[in-house]
Parts: sequence; C-alpha cells; structure tokens
Amino acid sequence: MRAEITDVVQFYDTDSGGVVSNIAYLRYVERARSALFEALGMPLDTMMEEGLFPTVIRTEIDYRRPARLGETVVTTAVLAEVEKVRVACDFRLEGKSESGESVTFATARQYVALVKMPEGRPRRIPREWAEFAG
Amino acid sequence: MRAEITDVVQFYDTDSGGVVSNIAYLRYVERARSALFEALGMPLDTMMEEGLFPTVIRTEIDYRRPARLGETVVTTAVLAEVEKVRVACDFRLEGKSESGESVTFATARQYVALVKMPEGRPRRIPREWAEFAG
Amino acid sequence: MRAEITDVVQFYDTDSGGVVSNIAYLRYVERARSALFEALGMPLDTMMEEGLFPTVIRTEIDYRRPARLGETVVTTAVLAEVEKVRVACDFRLEGKSESGESVTFATARQYVALVKMPEGRPRRIPREWAEFAG
Amino acid sequence: MRAEITDVVQFYDTDSGGVVSNIAYLRYVERARSALFEALGMPLDTMMEEGLFPTVIRTEIDYRRPARLGETVVTTAVLAEVEKVRVACDFRLEGKSESGESVTFATARQYVALVKMPEGRPRRIPREWAEFAG
Repeated sequence: MRAEITDVVQFYDTDSGGVVSNIAYLRYVERARSALFEALGMPLDTMMEEGLFPTVIRTEIDYRRPARLGETVVTTAVLAEVEKVRVACDFRLEGKSESGESVTFATARQYVALVKMPEGRPRRIPREWAEFAG
Repeated sequence: MRAEITDVVQFYDTDSGGVVSNIAYLRYVERARSALFEALGMPLDTMMEEGLFPTVIRTEIDYRRPARLGETVVTTAVLAEVEKVRVACDFRLEGKSESGESVTFATARQYVALVKMPEGRPRRIPREWAEFAG
Repeated sequence: MRAEITDVVQFYDTDSGGVVSNIAYLRYVERARSALFEALGMPLDTMMEEGLFPTVIRTEIDYRRPARLGETVVTTAVLAEVEKVRVACDFRLEGKSESGESVTFATARQYVALVKMPEGRPRRIPREWAEFAG
Repeated sequence: MRAEITDVVQFYDTDSGGVVSNIAYLRYVERARSALFEALGMPLDTMMEEGLFPTVIRTEIDYRRPARLGETVVTTAVLAEVEKVRVACDFRLEGKSESGESVTFATARQYVALVKMPEGRPRRIPREWAEFAG
C-alpha cells in the first residue's frame, strides 16, 4: 500500500534561512499519510462521523538536503509495519537536482494508532492491513 | 477592554524573503484576540465545554513595515465596536526601531461572531459588552 | 489573467471548532496567488535569484461558510486591478454542497507590491499587466 | 544549559480531532530551542547578520497525552550531548492534570548542526559547549 503527493515549495513553507522550515516538511508528510489512509479505506471526509482518527504517536524525521522556494517535492508514503495497535508508515521526500538526478530532501517514519474519539481509546488495527505492509 | 501580548519572531514566523510571513502575523493577532476574549469572560479552557466559539467572519490587515527574525512584536487588541451579532476588534502590532522609536509592523481589524457549535448558529452579543467598547 | 488550485482540507487546516481555521484559508490564497504570479511571468523558483518578491501589503478576507475536514476547496485568483506600484488580486474559495450546489467558503482581496530585496524598495508594476486585469 | 517557555494552547494549535495537532508541538519545541541557543550565545536577532544557523538535522518526538485548547504547556529544553559537528537537545512538554499532578504531553530529541549560509557548510561545535551538556 503506497501513496504519493506532489508539492511546489511555497513562501509559507520556507524560513529566513532561505530553505524549507523543518516544521513545514511535516505538512507534506501529513498529506501523504492522509492519502495512504484513504487508500486503506479511511478517507478524511467521513472521519468526523466515524470518530475514529489515525493518531501520530511518534515521528522520526531526518533532514538530508534543504529544499528551496519553488522546488518540486514528491512525497511517498508506504505502510511499513503492522502491529496490534499501531502501524509504522515510511515517508520519502524527493526532488530533482539541476542536472536531473534524484535528490532526497528528507526521510521519515511515523507510528500511528487508530484512536476512537472522544473517549481517546486506541482500537485494534484491522487484521487485513497486514497484507498491505512492506 | 484591552489585551496585550509580546512575541519574539521565530524562524517559523519568517519566510525566505527574510521577513515575517504575512500569514504568521495572524497567529499574533489570534493570540491577542484570545487574551481579549478571556478578559471579556470567555477563556479558552472552557470553550469546548460551552461549545460557544468566537468566530472570525472578516479580517482586514495592513502590512506596514516588515518584522525580522528575533525582533520583539507587541500586539494589542481592543474591543472597537459592539453590534447585535458581531463585534469589531482592532489590533496593532508594534516594535522598536534601532534608534528606540516605536514602529508599526501591521494594523488589523477583525469582525467576530459568537457561534454555538455544532449547530453553527450565531448568538446575540452580550449587552454588557457595549460598555467595554471603544 | 486567472489561476486555480484545488485542495482537500487536512487535519492541519482545521481547529478544535471542527472546521477550517481562519488562518489556514490564507495558505490556499497564497498558493493561488503564487500560481497567478507564475502566469504573469514570476515563477517561485527564480524569485530568490531575482530578489524581486510579490509582497502582500493588505489582505481583506470574508469567511462565509466553514469548510470541513476532507472537503474539496477550489481557490481561484484573478488580477482585479493594476495601479502604479500595486495590484489587487481577488480570490474565491468554493466547494460543493451535499446536494451538488456550489458553495462559497470565503472571498478575499489582497493588494500586492513588487519589492526588491534586500533593499525593500517597491518597483513599478510592469505596464503590460494592465492588459491582464479585470 | 537549560531553557523553559510557557504556552497556552490556541485554536491554531488544535485540529478537528479536538486536541493539539502533532505538527503544532514542534512550534513549542522550536521556541524552546531558540531560547536554549540564546543561552548558548546565539540569539535570534543577530543570526541573519552572522549567517550561522542552528539547523535541525533529525527530530524524534513521542506524543504521550493530548493537550487541549486553553491548557498550559511548559516546554523545557536541555543540551543533552555535544559532538564534533552536531548537538543533541532534549525537550519535555508538560502540563498539570485537573487533580494537579504533572502530565507529560510529549518528549522530543533534536539533533542540530551549525550551518553557515548561504554556503550550507556545517561548522564545528564550539568546544566550550561540552561543559554545558547533560
């Protein structure tokens, strides 16, 4: 199971260091994660009714090369691991250098639980998701 | 009725133009507005229970001089006008120049209604707020 | 001259009132504005080299109907007026109701100058832009 | 070496799940990090002149208990480890439960390099910082 989104770096993504802010990359990650969960059968537009939310419990992100204003960033998300009450999602944020080679801006992993609100109780991960991992 | 908050411009407030992003100023405005509504008897920490939310229905903001990384920004909010179902709040975002003079980074006005959620119905503005205006 | 972008409302666009935050709409507006200025010959990816930045000097935004998590928002930008040192851009943020009718989430106007950095000096708006207005 | 900041959760920090967005906590972390680097002799307001920027190369953050609108969040930052070209900073985001006990919303670690811009070259960490670690 895999999802991919494409962005062009906006002013609001950058900071006065001249490159994309470390925080802004996490919006790309979140959008790719939403696309991944939609592919898993949990689209955003029915989540409020269901009250069942994918909830990030841990993020690890490595910043490898800064992206700049106007650069294209392709973010891919894959379901890497499925456990009882959490899944691991892996993300890769990539672009093209001026010479056309692929460059990696950042890689990330997020551990995500399915939390029933407003109780805040985690739900078991659907068994069938195990088939989509890796 | 008046509220004042103080911020130091962070990296996440700036963009690659080297100055504070036009969007970031609205976080300062929102925090000053929260402080103003707390002074009016609507603190943030009971809003979810009450389900009654100050809701911005119009923003006007004039950007006058760019603030830079590390500059101190003082934002003041006043209750400017009280109508039947909305109030107007005026904001001024100020700092000090190197020679110590006061400089205005931005001025803003927001029109705010009190909306009962989840119905989304506007409530009458409390009569007594009229005394706090101006 | 006209540009259009499409978004699906993400978690990071919403707040605990259950609807899109007043600040988040301005990211949609900014992205539509970037697309408009690209159409006018100022793409983001060469702006840092040129050092000439479209700079928002005033924003007016009216919030008309709240958008919710997962809703699709189409933002259109048009060049409305061209003056000597600033232009006015008009924005419309729209979606579809459940019955398929068009709904307007927000409308906005921004006045934008072209500012040469790092001097911070405004430049004359190119004469030929007058043909693209309205 | 240690820094501490205090925040009250704003609407723009929350999402429609009713709690603070996973991304918003990183603004608290960044502000605490800025305070820590100021204590280390690198205040924000001279960074643009110097062109030497603390740059996050890796973030790890564990979300433990959700913070809600209006809750007070105290973020502490300590310099945990000092290596040749990077330091590790540890963060703890805490509040008080209704019964007055301390609760931990999140803990985080960031690895930070000192990068000279616009070249993008990492600088050696000042030797004397080793004394401030731990």
